[in-house]
Amino acid sequence: MDYSPHRIAVVGAGLVGCSWAVIFAAKGRTVTVWDDSAAARAAVPARAEALLADMVSAGLAEDAHAALARITVAETLEAALEGAEYVQESVFERVDVKTPVAAAIGALIAPGTIVGSSSSGIPASAFTEGAPQRERFLVVHPINPPHVVPLVELVPAPWTDPDVPEMTRAFMLELGRVPVNLSREIEGFIVNRLQGALLNEARALLEDGIASTGDIDATIAHGLGLRWAFMGPFETIDLNAPGGVADYAARLAPLYQSIGASRSTPEAPWSPELIEKVTDERRAALPLDDLGARSNWRDRMLMGLVAHLAAARKAS
Amino acid sequence: MDYSPHRIAVVGAGLVGCSWAVIFAAKGRTVTVWDDSAAARAAVPARAEALLADMVSAGLAEDAHAALARITVAETLEAALEGAEYVQESVFERVDVKTPVAAAIGALIAPGTIVGSSSSGIPASAFTEGAPQRERFLVVHPINPPHVVPLVELVPAPWTDPDVPEMTRAFMLELGRVPVNLSREIEGFIVNRLQGALLNEARALLEDGIASTGDIDATIAHGLGLRWAFMGPFETIDLNAPGGVADYAARLAPLYQSIGASRSTPEAPWSPELIEKVTDERRAALPLDDLGARSNWRDRMLMGLVAHLAAARKAS
Repeated sequence: MDYSPHRIAVVGAGLVGCSWAVIFAAKGRTVTVWDDSAAARAAVPARAEALLADMVSAGLAEDAHAALARITVAETLEAALEGAEYVQESVFERVDVKTPVAAAIGALIAPGTIVGSSSSGIPASAFTEGAPQRERFLVVHPINPPHVVPLVELVPAPWTDPDVPEMTRAFMLELGRVPVNLSREIEGFIVNRLQGALLNEARALLEDGIASTGDIDATIAHGLGLRWAFMGPFETIDLNAPGGVADYAARLAPLYQSIGASRSTPEAPWSPELIEKVTDERRAALPLDDLGARSNWRDRMLMGLVAHLAAARKAS
Repeated sequence: MDYSPHRIAVVGAGLVGCSWAVIFAAKGRTVTVWDDSAAARAAVPARAEALLADMVSAGLAEDAHAALARITVAETLEAALEGAEYVQESVFERVDVKTPVAAAIGALIAPGTIVGSSSSGIPASAFTEGAPQRERFLVVHPINPPHVVPLVELVPAPWTDPDVPEMTRAFMLELGRVPVNLSREIEGFIVNRLQGALLNEARALLEDGIASTGDIDATIAHGLGLRWAFMGPFETIDLNAPGGVADYAARLAPLYQSIGASRSTPEAPWSPELIEKVTDERRAALPLDDLGARSNWRDRMLMGLVAHLAAARKAS
């Protein structure tokens, strides 16, 4: 489905909104950014410049100067939306914040404009029900940091026009993103459900005293996670048996079934004792004061990794 | 705990056994390999040479020629075990195969020798109960391909001498492996439980018609999996809230709890219809004839990734 908007509005100029601005601008789009905070509006040029510098060093953007020149800051929502063919909304993740913003956007956009929300968990149906042109809205959820990690989840509300997710997918592919289309709203979408499944099992292993926080983390960081950096769970098992996934399922599905059944309380809460144990073990590994520096390290590692994988895929 | 064995026996010379032989030899150990199949014994030098070439190209070994010269093939189990200070057993993964091999090894080793089994799922208690010196046995489970992926799971049987897992951990660290110590046997150990948790949720999402096989895979390969290549789930959430893991749990544990509770059938079997759907979608993405080539691609990607991450960690 053909859809290649060129005039983009970004509503909400926090870190996620600024990331979107540079993603669009790096692919030649004209971007107008608005935020209801004057301080956030004033911070856009410097933030965008820093994010573009990251992208250039990761091989994800070429001409930071030209991209920056395509980003302007609007003083009003009306000005930001004027002529916009696609809108990315990234305001604070709360229903009472997103609902009036959606209503205001819906009242101002031209027919045919699509509005994606960066919501990481609130479904579009929770804040667009009463919005004008609600059939043009869907969730377009990136992963942090958005300017580096290519995945976006596309989640329609029940009243989203069926063409809208497909059109948005086409646009995201053009931007070099990796879109994932959900057929309908589900709690946690896919990203947080998969993350939650891994985390619930990790929590249970810790609670059962099977291994330390650090050793459980190591099974991912030095084992399973290495292949998950470039292939998903289905492709992984498809390659793990000579006859492919059916062959694998015949051999190993009973084990996974049995493991699943042995977790009698997948819905167990995180007990205060468990949180204390994880905190103690994490703080021994990394003092709280170093959390920010480690997060920056993570982002640099991600940038290098994305660039490395792109080059490796091209070479193979 | 100090333990640095130099004379190593490798029992079972399939791909996993040969991988272990080169891992030991690349770190200066003298290795004697035995397999009850004459064809497998004859194949050892060529296999070891190919694996060492992989390791050199990935920056995981330096002098392939010298390493190869430290590997010899024994004609009998007795000869392989003579003087061995550590034994790695990698025979076929079946209780009736591993049990007599464990008994034979236990009868021949000198006191103090440790015996690690590459078992990926069968606990040591299932095949060492009647073995002489059974307190010297434990599971030392690598991930495929072992000569590239550094993780090893160390799983004691109830009768394993408590010093043995700690001594083996010290040895594995010396080899440049990343050991993970389990306090006791649990079905699937940690690796297959974490993989199973992700796979069970992925299967359920597919069964519910939420997204395609390829899109579910993409959420890992282009999203979550990127950070899991270098950090585990606990460190991930620790860095995702300004106050660390306790702050994160306060905000998001209820979501994960709710997601866990919404999966009423974690123990659901893989239905024939589901296996057919995954197979159809995978075969559309990759014909069965190309499975081997894609597996080789995966191994090359892993080698490049391990080398890239090692360099990136060193540089940061």
